[in-house]
Formats: sequence, structure tokens, C-alpha cells
Amino acid sequence: MRLESPAMNFVVYLGDVITANNLPIHNASLYWEQAISPTRARNIPWASLFGNHDDAPFEWPIDWFSSSGVPQILCPYANTSRGDKCSFKGTTRLELMRDEIRHNSLSYTGFGPQNLWPSVSNYVLTVVSHDNKLPAMFMYFLDSGGGSYPEVISTIQSQWFHNVSQEMNPDSSIPEIVFWHIPSKAYKKVAARQTRCVGSMFDEPVATQEAEMGMMKLLKKRPSVKAIFVGHNHGLDWCCPYKKMWLCYARHTGYGGYGTWARGARILEVTDEPFSLKSWIRMENGSLHSEVVLSK
Amino acid sequence: MRLESPAMNFVVYLGDVITANNLPIHNASLYWEQAISPTRARNIPWASLFGNHDDAPFEWPIDWFSSSGVPQILCPYANTSRGDKCSFKGTTRLELMRDEIRHNSLSYTGFGPQNLWPSVSNYVLTVVSHDNKLPAMFMYFLDSGGGSYPEVISTIQSQWFHNVSQEMNPDSSIPEIVFWHIPSKAYKKVAARQTRCVGSMFDEPVATQEAEMGMMKLLKKRPSVKAIFVGHNHGLDWCCPYKKMWLCYARHTGYGGYGTWARGARILEVTDEPFSLKSWIRMENGSLHSEVVLSK
Repeated sequence: MRLESPAMNFVVYLGDVITANNLPIHNASLYWEQAISPTRARNIPWASLFGNHDDAPFEWPIDWFSSSGVPQILCPYANTSRGDKCSFKGTTRLELMRDEIRHNSLSYTGFGPQNLWPSVSNYVLTVVSHDNKLPAMFMYFLDSGGGSYPEVISTIQSQWFHNVSQEMNPDSSIPEIVFWHIPSKAYKKVAARQTRCVGSMFDEPVATQEAEMGMMKLLKKRPSVKAIFVGHNHGLDWCCPYKKMWLCYARHTGYGGYGTWARGARILEVTDEPFSLKSWIRMENGSLHSEVVLSK
Repeated sequence: MRLESPAMNFVVYLGDVITANNLPIHNASLYWEQAISPTRARNIPWASLFGNHDDAPFEWPIDWFSSSGVPQILCPYANTSRGDKCSFKGTTRLELMRDEIRHNSLSYTGFGPQNLWPSVSNYVLTVVSHDNKLPAMFMYFLDSGGGSYPEVISTIQSQWFHNVSQEMNPDSSIPEIVFWHIPSKAYKKVAARQTRCVGSMFDEPVATQEAEMGMMKLLKKRPSVKAIFVGHNHGLDWCCPYKKMWLCYARHTGYGGYGTWARGARILEVTDEPFSLKSWIRMENGSLHSEVVLSK
């Protein structure tokens, strides 16, 4: 997939598009469609990746068992005619992604190679220059797990990134940015240090992946990697420098999910010739804050 | 359902019949059928109830993600023709129970009232005297949760027990015994005390339900309740007295499940006129131990 700059808008859904823990239905894709509908309505292309809530099974509140019975559960999109119209097993990543791609010509989301499975949203998009049509930036999307399987970026995902980035950008001359959902352990380190950080840092602790399996080592070594963007912690929206790159959070954006923080989104502004990457938070009411230059 | 004594053999499957955490298939009923096949082959009737592993989803070992990829997963009973022949969501309690009852005329297992759902194996069997055909004992089966929902016996299950036992045995004159999978918190208490206990007590800690929601209070008050039998902790096979009844474990029985303890089973011997309830452990090699008189 090739995206053309400049003046092209593009939305990245950074996982936890839906909170499947609350969804007692066979196929949650209709909720997923609702979540992405504002972008589609504006005719803006987008890409998505998976968080730990998207394919989670239904979680039964223990309070329901200490009361006089489970409340009636409504399954609005139940698609079977049998007695058990609801389903509590969650919708798989593959089902959600297949439905997104099938129904949306504006979606740039990719499945990723089958050998990375059960991790599925692993792919790269190339942003090309409007002038010379040459690659100006690469955007990597990775599935950091969670929900139906462990919260990790696997060794084989790291190998995939290594191979693809070596092939597409062998001399590391073209800038690269990376998106996934659950912070690496390095996020905890830089948050403790608080050096040159920009944004909200204290509303909740950093919740990291379960283990590091090689991805961060690769990114640290690669000069072209300018920044990593994660979601997961709704109360955090900071960027902190780490080695020669930046580690950034997005921002509590949706109407679902946990927390009552004011909604906003992280904006990235990319220019080429010369390449620059600037970022800030835009709140739902239009106000801006936490501007930071990530690369110039 | 009525069972006739004496000289009638009957098997109780006390949950965790299968370890669904390891089963990557759409419908685990064929494994369930294999597990109960020795009883069926001997033409012995049985009843089953649910443990916390039976409907659990597949659990991905984190080690698979730090190696060079997920090993090839075999799904021997895959019943779809599509690419994703495996399924990792687990088989529901309803599916497992429906299949057991449908395919086995020897099964005395019951669904239980729908208003107790998602808890499903809640039912009572009446053992009648061979001589006068009157009830000699009631066997209560309860679903103590776990797997796809919390590990509890709910308030509404307790109410169900209260109502049914009051109706069937209003003056509490006929003995009652109770089966479920996960120990109540009282098991921890009696294990700490070790008073008049019989059997293996130290091979692992007692792992109890998440909360008490009224069932134990009812059972303590009811003179006719002679004993409770649970599974869950494969390393324990004791009986300890508690108030006016006994709390008992079964024994590591199956070829699956965790632990390498020698296999055996708890035997109950019931006589009527006069009523007596004796129990011991019979090991796979035929040796017997830990005999205890639970009621006489």
C-alpha cells in the first residue's frame, strides 16, 4: 500500500477499537464498524491494529452471581435463531480484520504474514512523496497481543520487522515510525526518568507487555526509527525521548473503554524534503497541547 | 431421575472431565466422550458436573512467542472446511452437556433450571430403596463455576437448593449428599485445623471458590446434609469433619489434568435401613486406603 503526501489525512486506530469484554454477541464486527464510522463518513483512509480488548471473551461481573440472578442480556446483533442467541467467546482477530477489510475500501489495514499468527495486524505502509513519488516514510504496524493470547511482540514478529525493513530501507535512510498497542518495558523506564517528556504522565501507571522478545533491541539499533506510538493506558498521553527516538502514547479517544479523561487524539504532522515529524494532542473541543518535534 | 439401591453402581464425574485449555477445536465433546467411555463400556450409569477447565478457552504458552514461531497445531476433530480449521475459544458448558445427554442413555446428568445460567449442571438425583421404593438419599449436583465465568456458587443457586430440598425433603429426614467441583472456603479452615481428617492433606494448598454466596450457610443448617465432595485439587484426597457433616475431596483420577499423583477414585458405599455412608480411596492398582464412616 502506498500513501501519498502531502495534504493527505490518515487515521490510525491503535487498538482497543472495541471492548469485547462487554459484548455478548457472535460477531462484534458491527460494533467495530460503528467505531470507525466517523472516519469513513469523512472519507478519510485509515489503518488499524489490535489491542488486548478487541478479541477478549465476555467477562462476567462477579456481582451478578451474588444478586438474585444474572440480568437479562441483550444481544442486538444475534445472528442465530436458536435458544442461545448470545455468544460469550469473543470475536477472533481474524474475523474482525476480515470484516473490516472486506467492507471498507478506505481501510489500509493488513493481515500480515500467516507465520506470525496468532498475531495478525503486522504490516507496513509506505508514504510516498507527492513530488517524486519516492518513499518518504514507512509506517510499521504491529500486534502486541493480549486478549486471547499473551501480551507480547514475539521473536518471529521481530524477525519479520528486521527482514522487511532491511529489504525496503536497507541503508536506513528513509524515516520509519512504528505503531502498536501495549507499551514496551522501555516506556516504564523513561516515565520514571521524566527527562524531556511532554504530556500527561501521572494519571496512571505504565502497563507494559509481559516480556521483551527482541523488537526494542532492533528499533534502538536502527537510525531511521524516529518514534513508537502506543495506546493501552488511557490516562497517559506523553512523549519521552529514548535513545535516538521517541516513545509516545496516544490519548483517550473513544466513547467506550475505561476512564473518564477528556477525549482527544494524538496528531502527527509529517513533511518531506526536508523530512520533519511534529506531534501534538488535539482535544475534542479543539484545544491543542503538548506539541513536540519528534524528528526534523 | 430415580436410582435404585442396593447393589447399583454409579459413577460421578466431578468436573474437569477435559482440560479445554489445551484443546484447539470447535467442539470438545469428542474428548468428553472419550473421557467417559470406560464407564459407558461397563454399562454403568453416571452423572457429571462442570469444573473450571471444561469450557476454558485455549491458553497460549508464552514460550511459543519467544521461539521461532508457534508450533503446528493439530486439530483432529476440526469440523469446518475453511482455513481456520482450529478454534481457540473453548466449547460452552451448554454444548458439552447437550452432547453428553443426547448421546448417552446411561447419563443421568441434568441441565438444571435456566434461571441459574450460566451455571448449568445443577440438579438432584433421588436414590430409592430397593425394598419399598421410597427415597433413601438425595444427591445434589452443583456447578461451582470457573472457566468462562467466575468460580462461585451463586446466590440464586443457593436459593434453588433451598427451595428444592425444602420441597423434596421438608423435614430433613432423608440423608442428602452434595457434589461440586471447587472447594468452598470452609475446606481451607478444616485443612488448617487437621482435626479428625483422613487422607492426603499436604501435597498442595486448598484452592477455593472466589466468594461464598450462601450455599455453605444453608448446608450447615440442614441436618440431613451428610457430606460434600469436591475435586479441583488433584493432590488432595482427604475427608475432614465440619460442623455436623464431612467435607471431602475426590482423588486424582484421570490420565489428563495436572500432576503426576498416582491415580485413584473416591468410593462411596451407601446402605439403607439403616442408612450408612462409608467412603475410601481405591487406587488404580486396586489397593484401598483412607476409609472413613461419613454417616451411620
